[in-house]
Amino acid sequence: MSFEDVVELAKRRGFFWPSFSIYGGSSGFYDYGPLGTLLKDNIISIWKKSYAKEGAIFLDTPVIAPADVFKASGHLEKFSDIAVKCEKCKTAYKLENLLKSVGIDVPLNNVEKANAVLEEYDVKCPKCGAPLRGAYEFNLMFKVGTNELYLRPETAQGIFINFKNLYNYSRNTMPIIVCQVGKGFRNEISPRQALIRMREFTQAEVEVFYLNDSDFNPNGNSLKFKLLRNTGEEVTVDLKEALHSGIVKNPVMAYFLEKTYSILSSIGFNPNHLRAREHDPLERAHYSSETWDFEYLMDGEWIEIVGVSDRGTYDLGRHQQFSGENMEVDGNIPRVVEPSYGIDRIVLTILNDGYYIRDNGYKVLKLDPAVSPLHFAVFPLQRRDGLDAKAKELFNKIKQIDPFVYYDEGGNIGRRYARQDEIGTPFCITVDYETLEDSTVTIRERDSTKQVRENIEELLQKISDYPEYPTSLFKN
Amino acid sequence: MSFEDVVELAKRRGFFWPSFSIYGGSSGFYDYGPLGTLLKDNIISIWKKSYAKEGAIFLDTPVIAPADVFKASGHLEKFSDIAVKCEKCKTAYKLENLLKSVGIDVPLNNVEKANAVLEEYDVKCPKCGAPLRGAYEFNLMFKVGTNELYLRPETAQGIFINFKNLYNYSRNTMPIIVCQVGKGFRNEISPRQALIRMREFTQAEVEVFYLNDSDFNPNGNSLKFKLLRNTGEEVTVDLKEALHSGIVKNPVMAYFLEKTYSILSSIGFNPNHLRAREHDPLERAHYSSETWDFEYLMDGEWIEIVGVSDRGTYDLGRHQQFSGENMEVDGNIPRVVEPSYGIDRIVLTILNDGYYIRDNGYKVLKLDPAVSPLHFAVFPLQRRDGLDAKAKELFNKIKQIDPFVYYDEGGNIGRRYARQDEIGTPFCITVDYETLEDSTVTIRERDSTKQVRENIEELLQKISDYPEYPTSLFKN
Repeated sequence: MSFEDVVELAKRRGFFWPSFSIYGGSSGFYDYGPLGTLLKDNIISIWKKSYAKEGAIFLDTPVIAPADVFKASGHLEKFSDIAVKCEKCKTAYKLENLLKSVGIDVPLNNVEKANAVLEEYDVKCPKCGAPLRGAYEFNLMFKVGTNELYLRPETAQGIFINFKNLYNYSRNTMPIIVCQVGKGFRNEISPRQALIRMREFTQAEVEVFYLNDSDFNPNGNSLKFKLLRNTGEEVTVDLKEALHSGIVKNPVMAYFLEKTYSILSSIGFNPNHLRAREHDPLERAHYSSETWDFEYLMDGEWIEIVGVSDRGTYDLGRHQQFSGENMEVDGNIPRVVEPSYGIDRIVLTILNDGYYIRDNGYKVLKLDPAVSPLHFAVFPLQRRDGLDAKAKELFNKIKQIDPFVYYDEGGNIGRRYARQDEIGTPFCITVDYETLEDSTVTIRERDSTKQVRENIEELLQKISDYPEYPTSLFKN
Repeated sequence: MSFEDVVELAKRRGFFWPSFSIYGGSSGFYDYGPLGTLLKDNIISIWKKSYAKEGAIFLDTPVIAPADVFKASGHLEKFSDIAVKCEKCKTAYKLENLLKSVGIDVPLNNVEKANAVLEEYDVKCPKCGAPLRGAYEFNLMFKVGTNELYLRPETAQGIFINFKNLYNYSRNTMPIIVCQVGKGFRNEISPRQALIRMREFTQAEVEVFYLNDSDFNPNGNSLKFKLLRNTGEEVTVDLKEALHSGIVKNPVMAYFLEKTYSILSSIGFNPNHLRAREHDPLERAHYSSETWDFEYLMDGEWIEIVGVSDRGTYDLGRHQQFSGENMEVDGNIPRVVEPSYGIDRIVLTILNDGYYIRDNGYKVLKLDPAVSPLHFAVFPLQRRDGLDAKAKELFNKIKQIDPFVYYDEGGNIGRRYARQDEIGTPFCITVDYETLEDSTVTIRERDSTKQVRENIEELLQKISDYPEYPTSLFKN
């Protein structure tokens, strides 16, 4: 299915839709509907549990912060895009995207270079045809209120400025892994592609503080997958090999690339649709010395979903310099590797990855049961002969154990299966005439469409083991 | 323990602390540390599960919204406090709080009344002694960027403007219960008391849309507890009685007061420290016709932790009027009851409610195992003879099943128990010399300090049933 198909379906079924539509909308803002909210929460929960098993600690800091924080981090000075505004129709463009869309692929180091490119290629406004000239730097930070407050462009700074508190909490041991999930904000010039580039977005960020490279090492347990180096060379190796052959320079980077690969697999991505791509030196953020992006192939375009950056001592060093507070441990400033997960992009791309069309023409969303918004649907075969009462009774019992269950008695049974397949519900439970005789029901699995009969008491006893049960019933 | 003791302990042990301290702080902003983040998440998780069992649906909308939304909601016009600024020392005060602090308890209907009160009582600046005059309305909305965007003062509006999308998702059935948890923002004149009044806070809001009063009715299964009417009368009844005797006017209101009482009990509040208080007509928000606050008694002051408001048709009606979109169902505008949970205040007050001092002088945090940040701690009795290796091995095994476990081998065992008691860890597991012989360990329960011996294999098999296990071991 194409990107547009996924966006249409997401809106129609309640995964996400553009915000403020009754007031004409506001570009760059999306709402998560009932199914999207649950899907997003489930993805965050897998991420959280996975890092908790690494011994990570968690933090939750405000989205608003004073200017001092972003003077030190460099965002107020350097966090900007090169923009150009059409003098005739007043449309503003992020120049990099505009150039790409008309097939011009040149790096834009600075405003002077950008103006030279506009001149050389005689770039015109795609909307009204007027020539575009006069590129300028556009800072992406949102100011709040009348005091010197800003919305954070990343959750990371809240962690860096708390380093000493977190080190104390950890009873002065190193390394420490700190996780934060929350909103970030960027005043994008031209938001695009639904959840891909928004003005308000959800990040799940991890800051790994360490003194020695040898604190973390990949154990080689990832499958081999594609790494695209910034030399253009593409290799298919596991992370242990990638480190030993010098493709990935920092063992801590290699370890967290491996971990990220394993998290994306747990979320249900097809590994063949993923690659890790190394940033060009010019492309890297101002704080980074090595960056690898996990990218997902959607509609022929590689979309970044996770960025893993070696931030070195940049952030702690700057905050030490600007605040005058000592950020060192044993006389050294700890180094930092940062895996940063774009949760909205993961939601969008896992939907794209999951959709396929069954032989009968119906759409199916093949989500891993661990992330699917609803776990079960309960149907009466017919809306009569006591089947509906029996099904409702079962539904209410299940709901008290696992509330992510849906009751449906509308339309024929095939239509009801199709409705659940389209939103990824892995198991449908049907109450039929046999149920009235022997208290068994059918459980039907989404992808195989196989059905097994199960005793109701057995079902209710095991259902709290979801997703292991009833997945195990369909394993052979 | 006093409020100040709780705040000191919260900071020292990593529940919460003032934000941006390395840059001198910014009043009204707090960070959740490692333990506070987990505690907050656990509270939200109980709330979410409880409403999911009611058949609620979930939504997640941006914290930024265009001015149109808040023109319609009335916030741009009416969401303000009466303030006064000292002309001499430039300190700004929220007048209501200032008057209360000097023992003047009069309602401030408007700026004229406020100025009359300042004059009549000759109110002086508590800081510099200069007379305070010239009260003014101070709008609490935060503006964002240079366009007409604002930070939401409540999550609710994101739900109201989506009513038709949510009604469609629910296949045009009523009533519908919609939940959203997220950040809200108010530009408070004088933030105070740590998590009590912040500029950025977390709300868990529920909007119940219904056509008929009879859609919900309390079932009388709450214990009797204190209701304080706005007539000054105090009664101790259950919600069924309260409805039948006319103390609570709307059955939907009574149902969700009952539900809120049950959620607060699940979180672990001592019901004797709670009451529900009815708002005066003057005190109610501009959209409300009946409001009851759940309040918690802390240091002799009643603190609002949940507000349940009858918003009637106010919000849908205003959005229909301002957007021109039809918000009706079968020709009627649905009515709304809103239980709104102040998550930060719940975190602070549950900490206050849980702390007590044991006979030996040590502090204990009696948190319900369902919300405690850490579930287990593992100790070797001594750091030698292989006990430490054995304890670490057990710790690593537990961590793979339940990551909220802590390893500690520092100091004597009594000190280690005390360290965990102070942060509310309900179960400590100790590896001792007997363990090396028969593979059993002791499990020690926080409140009773009772110990039971359990086989390691048994423990590992049942540990995923937390909090039922090992709670059940200490039930007799």
